[in-house]
Amino acid sequence: MFIEKVNSPADIRQFSTEQLNELASEIREGLMNRLSKKGGHCGPNFGFVEATIALHYVFNSPVDKIVFDVSHQSYAHKMLTGRKDAYIYDEHFEDISGYTNPEESEHDFFNVGHTSTSVSLACGLAKARDLKGDKENIIAVIGDGSLSGGEALEGIDFASELESNFIIIVNDNDMSIAENHGGLYKNLKALRDSDGKCECNLFKAMGLDYKYVAEGNDIEALIDAFESVKDIDHPIVVHINTLKGKGYKPAETEKEKWHWCMPFDIETGNSKFVFEGEDYDDMTCDYLLKKMKEDKKVVTVVAAVPTCIGFTEDKRKEAGKQFIDVGIAEEHAVAMVSGIAKNGGKPVFATHSSFFQRTYDQISQDLCINNNPATLLVNTASVYGMNDVTHLGIYDIPMMSNIPNLVYLAPTNCEEYFAMLDWSIEQDKYPVAIRIPCNGVVHTDKVVDADYGDINKYRIEQQGEDVAIIALGDFYQIGEKLAGLITKKTGKNPTLINPRFITGIDKEMLEGLKKNHTKVVTLEDGIKDGGFGEKIARFYGASDMKVYNYGLKKEFIDRYLADDILKENRITPELILEDIYA
Amino acid sequence: MFIEKVNSPADIRQFSTEQLNELASEIREGLMNRLSKKGGHCGPNFGFVEATIALHYVFNSPVDKIVFDVSHQSYAHKMLTGRKDAYIYDEHFEDISGYTNPEESEHDFFNVGHTSTSVSLACGLAKARDLKGDKENIIAVIGDGSLSGGEALEGIDFASELESNFIIIVNDNDMSIAENHGGLYKNLKALRDSDGKCECNLFKAMGLDYKYVAEGNDIEALIDAFESVKDIDHPIVVHINTLKGKGYKPAETEKEKWHWCMPFDIETGNSKFVFEGEDYDDMTCDYLLKKMKEDKKVVTVVAAVPTCIGFTEDKRKEAGKQFIDVGIAEEHAVAMVSGIAKNGGKPVFATHSSFFQRTYDQISQDLCINNNPATLLVNTASVYGMNDVTHLGIYDIPMMSNIPNLVYLAPTNCEEYFAMLDWSIEQDKYPVAIRIPCNGVVHTDKVVDADYGDINKYRIEQQGEDVAIIALGDFYQIGEKLAGLITKKTGKNPTLINPRFITGIDKEMLEGLKKNHTKVVTLEDGIKDGGFGEKIARFYGASDMKVYNYGLKKEFIDRYLADDILKENRITPELILEDIYA
Repeated sequence: MFIEKVNSPADIRQFSTEQLNELASEIREGLMNRLSKKGGHCGPNFGFVEATIALHYVFNSPVDKIVFDVSHQSYAHKMLTGRKDAYIYDEHFEDISGYTNPEESEHDFFNVGHTSTSVSLACGLAKARDLKGDKENIIAVIGDGSLSGGEALEGIDFASELESNFIIIVNDNDMSIAENHGGLYKNLKALRDSDGKCECNLFKAMGLDYKYVAEGNDIEALIDAFESVKDIDHPIVVHINTLKGKGYKPAETEKEKWHWCMPFDIETGNSKFVFEGEDYDDMTCDYLLKKMKEDKKVVTVVAAVPTCIGFTEDKRKEAGKQFIDVGIAEEHAVAMVSGIAKNGGKPVFATHSSFFQRTYDQISQDLCINNNPATLLVNTASVYGMNDVTHLGIYDIPMMSNIPNLVYLAPTNCEEYFAMLDWSIEQDKYPVAIRIPCNGVVHTDKVVDADYGDINKYRIEQQGEDVAIIALGDFYQIGEKLAGLITKKTGKNPTLINPRFITGIDKEMLEGLKKNHTKVVTLEDGIKDGGFGEKIARFYGASDMKVYNYGLKKEFIDRYLADDILKENRITPELILEDIYA
Repeated sequence: MFIEKVNSPADIRQFSTEQLNELASEIREGLMNRLSKKGGHCGPNFGFVEATIALHYVFNSPVDKIVFDVSHQSYAHKMLTGRKDAYIYDEHFEDISGYTNPEESEHDFFNVGHTSTSVSLACGLAKARDLKGDKENIIAVIGDGSLSGGEALEGIDFASELESNFIIIVNDNDMSIAENHGGLYKNLKALRDSDGKCECNLFKAMGLDYKYVAEGNDIEALIDAFESVKDIDHPIVVHINTLKGKGYKPAETEKEKWHWCMPFDIETGNSKFVFEGEDYDDMTCDYLLKKMKEDKKVVTVVAAVPTCIGFTEDKRKEAGKQFIDVGIAEEHAVAMVSGIAKNGGKPVFATHSSFFQRTYDQISQDLCINNNPATLLVNTASVYGMNDVTHLGIYDIPMMSNIPNLVYLAPTNCEEYFAMLDWSIEQDKYPVAIRIPCNGVVHTDKVVDADYGDINKYRIEQQGEDVAIIALGDFYQIGEKLAGLITKKTGKNPTLINPRFITGIDKEMLEGLKKNHTKVVTLEDGIKDGGFGEKIARFYGASDMKVYNYGLKKEFIDRYLADDILKENRITPELILEDIYA
């Protein structure tokens, strides 16, 4: 095997074209080994094997610097830069992350997991090079799907100002995660259809030089193209047309399904992970589909991750014009739903907690200053959510809940979640965000409230004494267990409160607790800094009430087990019991 | 006067062309009256008078809906929609804000003060219209300067997906606040130079139909153009070439200076506001210029507001390649400085607190996960900063200080500010943000620390007993005064602490205070929710220490006097004294 001999990119430079093609096959075998057993990003990596080989054949990494966007096409790069074992040998799977990672290799310059960042990051490398008087090549790799993101468009617009060596590889496989959305994709098609010759050219319109490579999976053609731009003295886009999923038929055919995969059977393509039982993605989709059929003013908006709320292709078709995928354009999505609400529509925008980070300003300015009644559904906002450092869902409480006018709700069970969602869609007074529960689908027998218009009104689920537990959202069940333990230990029932509202405090209720309580425990599924519990601590600051805040430490964590993190932060009923009776 | 008769746009529709031109002159007189006495956005409004008249002549506002970007070209619109008195009569100046404002008029759809939002907001109005089956025209107005912003580019890319009536007016005066930066401006020039005919066309490349109007200050030409697109059945860009400052020679000539003005003498163009004395803009500029001369790796980055740190045109020239204006592209700026720092440069990016809101995700993902040593200078981050609801500098503490890895510093005086800035530029371990003081230039005789590498180490400025005052940044001087009052009242000196670090707590020092203190007072120049003081309240939550947090209420405030807001929030030494000895 050639791949066995490759420990750094220099090792491939004496290979013949035939050998490089053989190497491509071997890389695909490695990808297949890891992906079929561990899962990961499938289609984009299969499509970028040849380009990666050509890049490392032509350029001298790490002196020449390649920056990958979102990292979903960086696996072959990892294999060529000393990390092949993590693909070939199962026992080394855990050696690496799914993203470029400077801690793993000097060939990785940034830890990247959000889209649309490579051009701007690479512009920075180029500018520093110029300031120092160095001469290396700086290369940004970006997929067509990522081009619709504001950060990428800002970066591409700026790039021509560099006036020095800068190479942008646009990896165009004519797909985002799902199909692309946005007018620029018509231009990419026109460029592909004209072999790059059509006069109207997005990249040239952004002030950049341009080169097209039709055969984006042909190593020789790519080497020729990259050789021709190596050491160029100005910024240029090299637009290459690749096949998403190349080399694995199911992935070539069903591109959306195979963008990312769980472990699967290579022969049949069937997933080995069979999830049975209820799940909020599908339930949210079903709810919204029904709602949209009943009311033509309801509209569901996503930003390139439609299945985060269950909208697979058939469901999107069913929703028709009442479903909008804006592509990777979260800022636009939030501003647009403000406009929809302003003109009498009932919009619901859903994406992952981590991707809402793109929209702080739009939530504040476009939505909340204008107080328009749009609904934001915040997915995987939890320690139980995605556990890669670039996709953590544990920061949205400090980020969003301190924005004035926003009503941010944390449901504690399935029935409450859908009651909140329904209330939010039908009310016309507030911008509302809702954390979709992330701790499994928990049902309740209790009647949940239908109306959440009494803003910041907490709900007492159990009236007790001495200790009050204020347990927010996903951590409500921990609060319930803690209550049981306290009763068992002391013989007295503690008070158990479901605050529901993350964005404010129920002063009357908190004031009332002073009468026959000495301790308040808060629980929240996110970092403590800037979070919910601190508001309670501030409220009681000058009183005799003892306040114990439980939540996560403010830090970046990576590839963790939720239970470990909870224990480290002493967020178990048993440990909390220890603390408050210490 | 014609303007006297105009109470709503309908009133201008029977005017002849001659009368409309006369109306334009009268509108300029009104603008001149208000701007010369009160100040405001000058150049963009002077340039957009004819287009505003033509828009309201052709379209039927408020049924047809016009959305203005950033509001800096909305003054003539205000005059035509029932608010002329606020321009003509001095006693009515305060009737209106400087921004579009739905509370003022049904012709305003959003309260807008940040750039690059109009297309996305208007897309929302259009989508809701389509859902409801209505037929009105939806018009987004956007200046060329705003086009470089990611939100605008996302919106323009998305617009073609609407497939229904949607009109984007690009008001191209070939200027941002300062000169434009970015490759797309070469394309706008090519379009202007070719009378809109050049084949390579940014807007067409984004999938949009296109029309060019060379005479953007000619009412007849504009009416013709707008009539031709009225009730169009698909999205189109109408690119009009206007003259910034049109009608006032100084503003036509010195476009950057006259983008925004303080009260001025009409005859000479001289500002009536003469500021003498020290100011942090100029001092920061002088410091950075010196630093850049000494070290070619230092680079200053701004996003379209170069003078927020004093970089006027001559200073920008002096800095040469070590100064970068990225245009309105804050996301790009933050990602780029991360890249610059990664490759050995020493970047400093400065903008206003309110505009940093655009960069939450870039600060978190591009900068802080990667832990690159870039410096962010946060300007007008204070209750003493800009007082329009869209430009408030009182939210950056909750927004930024809860992002892991970031070191956010709050200097308490001039010497400390420059010491922190110098330390930040020279260190290579942390992403650092610094709040530029905003309470006037306060000097100290004390020796300030040069090294801030002992992260989260607070500084005791006065060792005392019973009460500890932890006074952050701009509010340090309030803390000093409070300390004096306490001594006077009780005969005992309180402890006075300068925390310096917003992003963390000095556990050892706080623990030590328990020995001989019973009360802790925190002071911060920003909202309390998610802020600095709450971290202190959490720390002492389960102890006997009484904690009193002072800061602002979480709310959107508009056109306030700082002293009023401080009093409302009881942030004066006297009121705090009352509270803690109540």
